[in-house]
Amino acid sequence: MIYMDNAASAPIHKDVVAAMLSCINKTYGNPSSIHRAGRMAKRSIEAARSSVAELINADPSEIFFTSGGTESNNTILRNPSYRNIITTQIEHDSILEPCRSCRGEKSITYLPPDEFGMISPESLESTITKQTDLVSIMTANNEVGTIQPIEKLSNICKGYGVPFHTDMVQAVGKMPIDVGRMGVDAASISSHKIRGPKGVGALYIRGGIKTSPLIYGGGQEGGLRSGTENVPAIVGFGEAARIARQQLHDDMQHVTSLRDTMTYRIMSEVSHVTYNGHPLHRLPGNAHLSFLGINGEDIIIKLDEYGMAASTGSACSVHTQKESHVLRAMKLDGDVISGSLRLTLGPDNTMADVDTAIHTIKRVVAELRRVSPLKEKYAF
Amino acid sequence: MIYMDNAASAPIHKDVVAAMLSCINKTYGNPSSIHRAGRMAKRSIEAARSSVAELINADPSEIFFTSGGTESNNTILRNPSYRNIITTQIEHDSILEPCRSCRGEKSITYLPPDEFGMISPESLESTITKQTDLVSIMTANNEVGTIQPIEKLSNICKGYGVPFHTDMVQAVGKMPIDVGRMGVDAASISSHKIRGPKGVGALYIRGGIKTSPLIYGGGQEGGLRSGTENVPAIVGFGEAARIARQQLHDDMQHVTSLRDTMTYRIMSEVSHVTYNGHPLHRLPGNAHLSFLGINGEDIIIKLDEYGMAASTGSACSVHTQKESHVLRAMKLDGDVISGSLRLTLGPDNTMADVDTAIHTIKRVVAELRRVSPLKEKYAF
Repeated sequence: MIYMDNAASAPIHKDVVAAMLSCINKTYGNPSSIHRAGRMAKRSIEAARSSVAELINADPSEIFFTSGGTESNNTILRNPSYRNIITTQIEHDSILEPCRSCRGEKSITYLPPDEFGMISPESLESTITKQTDLVSIMTANNEVGTIQPIEKLSNICKGYGVPFHTDMVQAVGKMPIDVGRMGVDAASISSHKIRGPKGVGALYIRGGIKTSPLIYGGGQEGGLRSGTENVPAIVGFGEAARIARQQLHDDMQHVTSLRDTMTYRIMSEVSHVTYNGHPLHRLPGNAHLSFLGINGEDIIIKLDEYGMAASTGSACSVHTQKESHVLRAMKLDGDVISGSLRLTLGPDNTMADVDTAIHTIKRVVAELRRVSPLKEKYAF
Repeated sequence: MIYMDNAASAPIHKDVVAAMLSCINKTYGNPSSIHRAGRMAKRSIEAARSSVAELINADPSEIFFTSGGTESNNTILRNPSYRNIITTQIEHDSILEPCRSCRGEKSITYLPPDEFGMISPESLESTITKQTDLVSIMTANNEVGTIQPIEKLSNICKGYGVPFHTDMVQAVGKMPIDVGRMGVDAASISSHKIRGPKGVGALYIRGGIKTSPLIYGGGQEGGLRSGTENVPAIVGFGEAARIARQQLHDDMQHVTSLRDTMTYRIMSEVSHVTYNGHPLHRLPGNAHLSFLGINGEDIIIKLDEYGMAASTGSACSVHTQKESHVLRAMKLDGDVISGSLRLTLGPDNTMADVDTAIHTIKRVVAELRRVSPLKEKYAF
């Protein structure tokens, strides 16, 4: 199978599996227990914490493990201290839905993106006030891959003394991240998007930022996140972070080159195609294309029949069959929205994958266009 | 190492590891994706759901996966619809802390246990009213192992039309559980207490009970629990549930016989020992003893030096060095509380473990009593 849905979930790295297995077999204690088995588990967690911290240039004391990116986002957004929030129209559902769940209790402003999926610093500048409690803007969009001007956005927040959170689930491990340089106060990270295991993520929180637990109990993770720590998954996450950091430069080059070759060839060999998202400020592995006159859902179902995994947008929204809220916010044309295909490449993809993908996509698009009701409109 | 801290975390079963490995290597898709990799992941989750449902005699549609027992408890207790709650003084912190976090917004009554850690149906009967929104009483206590009269308690709730939740984290896989016969409306389960992986649990919810998500986002788990499903952990949990169900009868016999032999011999070979919790209605693997005149913390530190893992109480409370809230609620004598040792056996323990444990405990107790400041009081 050609797997080009790495933004939904990345195949786990073999060294991560090995690290988890070794942990499962040797470290079965509860990290809160004071006997040897417990202390071993505790030490494994702290080593992983350092590794995750290094990936984003944070201090280990600023990293809190959670069950994943969704929980990290909920922990920040549902904190009752943050009542006046500014976020954007193109966030992931794990930001938007917690906001909607607090309707009535919180006042939330959603900044619109431009046609490239970019949030302008000016729009934040004209909305933020000293009464704003929190700004949350994603580092890179999960659908179109557009990378936001985080440094400029966080700088504006600093001017008003407002904490700045960023959902960096899609960005971590794909581009250099330095929370200090970027000026962020809080950030959400997921393990399974960087070839680590599912079921674990982290929240980066700079000291001095208001926090409140979402899950209460035994007081683990400095009281911010209770529940027995998922030790093997945390260890796997740490290993994935180590690998991502070590290979970041090579992976970025490799994935960008595959993506650019693929995009260039599709754009030149298939007619009526648009390339969505920002042409330059985008994640290395993200190619987001629209094939006019046909339906993205039909494309991925047919690609699947030919052994290729891709997505129309966020994996979390396909079953609801909703039009992408991101593409709609970018005010793209209806045919561009409905004909969209997201291909997200990872370090495991090869140039041979790209060749097969191009061949398969051309075939599927031709087949679907042959029976398209918009055949005459576009004169395929 | 002799591991007798199974109530804190049970060593994972080798077949569970094998099932997880196979899943990790073959099923790396995001279950929300509609391509083959996603559908395979989805199918694996549904098979595990059936297996967990069977263990407690529920319908698979009533099982919702979470990140663990703590999250399951929080999801019920922090639901804003439940404002008048009755629970007990001896619940786990993952029930008590969510209650405390809602101070001011909710009215919470804590029923006291008797000296055996038992909650009497009469005390519930005299407290419950038609205005009560929820009753939450654990199936079995994590420290002293006392099993509550769940059927009688749930019956009282039924009379008032009040939903009944039970934290069955310690009971599942250790005793026969039938949610129908027990008459419970909601129940929390954890995987790593039944030899499954950490980082996954479930919430059983009978249809018709008010629910509200704790974590919002992509709408997974029927909208009750968002976030990419932890597929390999869920698969491992399913396998652990299958094994627990298949071996329940044998495991209960084996573990009870080890526990009774151990308790009987310690009680007869060591002086000034009390056996805490209910003598009959208790979890098969739980032995909770107090060695008067010495300190439980000191016992487990010394046991650890001799290669044996045990606990004074809940793993979640040892680092806080607090007196056990369970033993205090049972109104046990101060020396009984401070000298307490919890030994929790699992199916992997053997009679040879028990022999070594008895030998080690006798040695440690003798050593500590030799230097005890209460030497004269008890005339050891």
